[in-house]
Amino acid sequence: WAARQEVNARVGIPQGPFLLESAGNLHDLRLAAGEERGEFRGDYPFMDSDVYKWLEAASWQLGRLHPDSPEGRRLADDVERIIGLVAAAQQPDGYLNTWFQAGKGAGRYRDLRWGHELYCAGHLIQAAVAHHRATGRERLLDVARRFADHLDAHFGAPGSGKPIDGIDGHPQIETALVELYRETGERRYLELAGYFVDRHGHGLLGGEAYCQDRVPVREARTVEGHAVRQLYLLAAVADLATETGEAQLHAAGERLWSAMTATKTYLTGGVGAHHHGEEFGGPYELPAERAYCETCAAIASIQFSWRMALLTGDARYSDLIERTLFNGFLAGVSLDGQSWLYVNPLQVRDGHTDIGGDQSARRTRWFRCACCPPNVMRLMASLEHYFASTDGRGIQLHQFATGTFRGDASGAPVVVSVSTDYPWDGRIAVTVEETPTDREWTLALRVPQWCTSFSVQRRSTERRTGGGPDGVGDPGDPESRDVEPCDVEPCDVEPCDVDVEATADRDGWLRLARSWKPGDRVVFELDMEPRLTGADPRVDAVRGCVAIERGPLVYCVEGADHPGSGLDDLVLDTTRPLAVKHRPDLLGGVTTVLGSGLRRPSTAAGWWPYPSRSGDGGRVTDGATAGVPFDLVAVPYYAWANREDGAMRVWLPTS
Amino acid sequence: WAARQEVNARVGIPQGPFLLESAGNLHDLRLAAGEERGEFRGDYPFMDSDVYKWLEAASWQLGRLHPDSPEGRRLADDVERIIGLVAAAQQPDGYLNTWFQAGKGAGRYRDLRWGHELYCAGHLIQAAVAHHRATGRERLLDVARRFADHLDAHFGAPGSGKPIDGIDGHPQIETALVELYRETGERRYLELAGYFVDRHGHGLLGGEAYCQDRVPVREARTVEGHAVRQLYLLAAVADLATETGEAQLHAAGERLWSAMTATKTYLTGGVGAHHHGEEFGGPYELPAERAYCETCAAIASIQFSWRMALLTGDARYSDLIERTLFNGFLAGVSLDGQSWLYVNPLQVRDGHTDIGGDQSARRTRWFRCACCPPNVMRLMASLEHYFASTDGRGIQLHQFATGTFRGDASGAPVVVSVSTDYPWDGRIAVTVEETPTDREWTLALRVPQWCTSFSVQRRSTERRTGGGPDGVGDPGDPESRDVEPCDVEPCDVEPCDVDVEATADRDGWLRLARSWKPGDRVVFELDMEPRLTGADPRVDAVRGCVAIERGPLVYCVEGADHPGSGLDDLVLDTTRPLAVKHRPDLLGGVTTVLGSGLRRPSTAAGWWPYPSRSGDGGRVTDGATAGVPFDLVAVPYYAWANREDGAMRVWLPTS
Repeated sequence: WAARQEVNARVGIPQGPFLLESAGNLHDLRLAAGEERGEFRGDYPFMDSDVYKWLEAASWQLGRLHPDSPEGRRLADDVERIIGLVAAAQQPDGYLNTWFQAGKGAGRYRDLRWGHELYCAGHLIQAAVAHHRATGRERLLDVARRFADHLDAHFGAPGSGKPIDGIDGHPQIETALVELYRETGERRYLELAGYFVDRHGHGLLGGEAYCQDRVPVREARTVEGHAVRQLYLLAAVADLATETGEAQLHAAGERLWSAMTATKTYLTGGVGAHHHGEEFGGPYELPAERAYCETCAAIASIQFSWRMALLTGDARYSDLIERTLFNGFLAGVSLDGQSWLYVNPLQVRDGHTDIGGDQSARRTRWFRCACCPPNVMRLMASLEHYFASTDGRGIQLHQFATGTFRGDASGAPVVVSVSTDYPWDGRIAVTVEETPTDREWTLALRVPQWCTSFSVQRRSTERRTGGGPDGVGDPGDPESRDVEPCDVEPCDVEPCDVDVEATADRDGWLRLARSWKPGDRVVFELDMEPRLTGADPRVDAVRGCVAIERGPLVYCVEGADHPGSGLDDLVLDTTRPLAVKHRPDLLGGVTTVLGSGLRRPSTAAGWWPYPSRSGDGGRVTDGATAGVPFDLVAVPYYAWANREDGAMRVWLPTS
Repeated sequence: WAARQEVNARVGIPQGPFLLESAGNLHDLRLAAGEERGEFRGDYPFMDSDVYKWLEAASWQLGRLHPDSPEGRRLADDVERIIGLVAAAQQPDGYLNTWFQAGKGAGRYRDLRWGHELYCAGHLIQAAVAHHRATGRERLLDVARRFADHLDAHFGAPGSGKPIDGIDGHPQIETALVELYRETGERRYLELAGYFVDRHGHGLLGGEAYCQDRVPVREARTVEGHAVRQLYLLAAVADLATETGEAQLHAAGERLWSAMTATKTYLTGGVGAHHHGEEFGGPYELPAERAYCETCAAIASIQFSWRMALLTGDARYSDLIERTLFNGFLAGVSLDGQSWLYVNPLQVRDGHTDIGGDQSARRTRWFRCACCPPNVMRLMASLEHYFASTDGRGIQLHQFATGTFRGDASGAPVVVSVSTDYPWDGRIAVTVEETPTDREWTLALRVPQWCTSFSVQRRSTERRTGGGPDGVGDPGDPESRDVEPCDVEPCDVEPCDVDVEATADRDGWLRLARSWKPGDRVVFELDMEPRLTGADPRVDAVRGCVAIERGPLVYCVEGADHPGSGLDDLVLDTTRPLAVKHRPDLLGGVTTVLGSGLRRPSTAAGWWPYPSRSGDGGRVTDGATAGVPFDLVAVPYYAWANREDGAMRVWLPTS
């Protein structure tokens, strides 16, 4: 992830102000601030949210930079300048939305279904919380609180004395208010969030599933409607369940997450099967080519899952996060950080005619509806938030990436460092850097859902040299890549080699509880053999197909690796083994998977593509497997569409 | 078809004025005519087109009714009343569009991309031509000519002296102008049609495929964009090729029809794979559940194909028409003629949550965008136009339905009558009613593409009794169903039993050329065994599935016939034979096909629906075929969704 975050920091975030300028968002803020004259620019009432999402991304990034570094100073200047613009655009009573301030639309809070005023407020609040947490500065938080107070004064249930009983057509304000409550301790923000969540599903917006207004979320049986709207709302459900302990909300979160994951999630973790309405399809309705899988929906799924992980402690939520991060989410941004995918299909046909626009199957510099790029930036800049947790009894490692993680063991700080080449390599070395010596605590490692075989080895040694976590080149240094396996250094005690049945708990965690000493090391090694994956037979779209996976990565075949061959006539020969080859030169360095394919003989189909099958003696076969053999190269799905335009497939026919 | 036309005449068309009144279309005309005050009603600038399409349907129907019958008088009154309203709404200069006259939108011809002014004009012209042809009355034709003259005065190429170089975002005016040329002999209408056709694809509307503005039609390699727009434009291409003999247009029609049929047409003849943009998908991108298959697109496909049939004489165009009429088109209207489908999916899942709206998978009384119902009405009322043709050397029977057809043999009239129970029964009896006796002419019968076995028998007899075509109960009466096969009555000469290789020409016609005598009879018998049909292996969506067909009918399974069983776990056992049972009591009388199925054991899938397949010894199978056997009943696809809501599938998994 370090390389991806680096691109985000070096290319993604710094280009934000330029792109927000050229798309008109900053112009619209200056318009509202009275600093400029002219026409409103942009086609949507949620232009402001792109600015806020960028501010959130930049704020998290500020927290990662040294304030006196040149990059830190430059970014802080950009952030301050734009915060100044936002503050200037805010109206005296706290209201802020440049679209409505420019006189577009029906007027304040008159078109809640489409106006996105509370949605934009939510992103403003999230940016403000991020800025405050990362920098300690209050300026944007003040703006956000004034807007939140304005909302609190205007929105409430009938009988509350507030003038408007209403919700926003696009959930987002709900999680934001919970975060604002956490940041400020002001309980009315939490209550307002609860009010908004529970007023969905009562027809205040006409009862459409698209707006999450068909069924109250406490009663809903499955996820439906616009995927991002649904998942932002569910993130708030999990937040509220965490803060209030309400069992009904807790159950709704679990039930709807399960319905989503078991029946409406793509192999990549992407969600949203329909282009029309950017919405969830029916159960098992998961077309590969026509997958919508909006990048924002992947982000929303991660946000929902993370809140469920914290609420329940179950590892499966982080299993889905891992899958979504490495596949459905990461595909949304190009390797160079400069172009984007709004939709993330699992297939592009030979000879695909791309008609451009936001839904292009080709990477695009920016979008008319530019929700995704700044959303990617903010997640990428805050990725480490999703990697580890502490429950006061130790540390839980949800994701595997090199870095240092701090937790708490009954009040005492614990620090571990992780060193790994994951996802290319399955070895994850965890070194205890700081630990109380007077009590036991638990190092919990998530055993990924995809993993059927792993080993764990533990070595307990005193540090031979005094090098702390900052020592460089020290053989005991956790940041060093040449960690020695424990069969070279004598290995300490029980259990030295443990298999999954013996140790992973039913909730997906491998828990190592003991009294730790600084320098203790655990080497967790996941078997990374490439594998073939099928789908539930009710997934009609991929019947008779398999996908190639390795570790947490979904693979795809791309036209670029198969010059002169159409991909749509390709059949994977599943009787031949898969091989692995690391290619440092390819796509920024990827491990490829090599397989054996057959090219289906091209059929002289004539004018009608539906041949009678009745003549085959009753036995129906789905095309011949005979064909010309050829070598098949699969690359990680996240890296697709970074070379010339061409076809792509995740699911490969087997006959 | 008689029963379907009867429902259209008795229920469909008569309800038109009521529905147009309640949806606001007639109100809008009164508004434009100054006969009423108030707000414009309806959400679209093409509200008028629904009125015109209904007028066209009613006009064709008037041609079928005796003018002095009560129904004829009632319908003529409705038509006259509405024509009066249309005439009153027309502006003095000939312009007519109630949306723009009501002050909505950008002003006359200022929003050609979305304004639908020329589209509405096209439907007005088609209604006027129909009314004139069916009744001989000039009133609506005068209105249409005045609008056409207004268009001709305003639209033209740069340098033509006309003020606007533009096209409509929705083709329709083009075919209408060709028809107006045919009706009036006024050549400038043909030229204007040619101008509009050729100005598509030059970016006048921004270059979008949706509006048929990405590529000039002469250069296009495949069908793309909005399906109805594409096919109305192609119908005009065929019309122009017919009228002008232009080889480039002729070739474009053939090329694009072939590309559509071979790669972008559903088994039902439906077209348009994407909900988003109501557009064609990529080649072989034909999802079953998410099929759009707009009813209007089926109608447009029939219009295009018929013009190609007349242009080329090839039977395959009428093969597609037959398939589309009996399946993709006919499903669009309920058996009772009172409710409609806008989209025609090939699958509805168990537990499908319908969210209503125009794109509902449930039949709907009327639509917000009500293009389809009056389009069905007009085709249904003019269906016989698509059944037969004459080329001056005899008669070509394109479709098989009971009725009398007139043609021409070197200037002499020829009349044949057809008697058949098609599509339930494969026997088609054709009797020569009127013929010159001094010359040879050709009776041409289309051998359907789906038909792999047929027989033809010819009997030449003098009428034993004098009964002409109107004789009733006469054994020689062509309307009688008990036509004797020729092995009972002695059969006359060569060839008495001919198989397809021997006689059907390569272009799909069985041509019987001879000197005919009145009373000569040909019995054409198509083998109607039910059959299993597969799909090109590039159609990813239905890999591993087959469909059941019989004759021209595509079959489906519906939840209503399988109470207590989910359809999505059903597997067709293709090793067991199919049986046929006619059910006069079911769905207005249908022949059902009975098969053997297995219910796939329900999988305890857990939370992740993508299991690893690598452990199966390398051999990947797509779910077990073991399961609980059960009897499967298939009904014709056109009759689906006429009982309780439930699941439906055309394509059935075979393992």
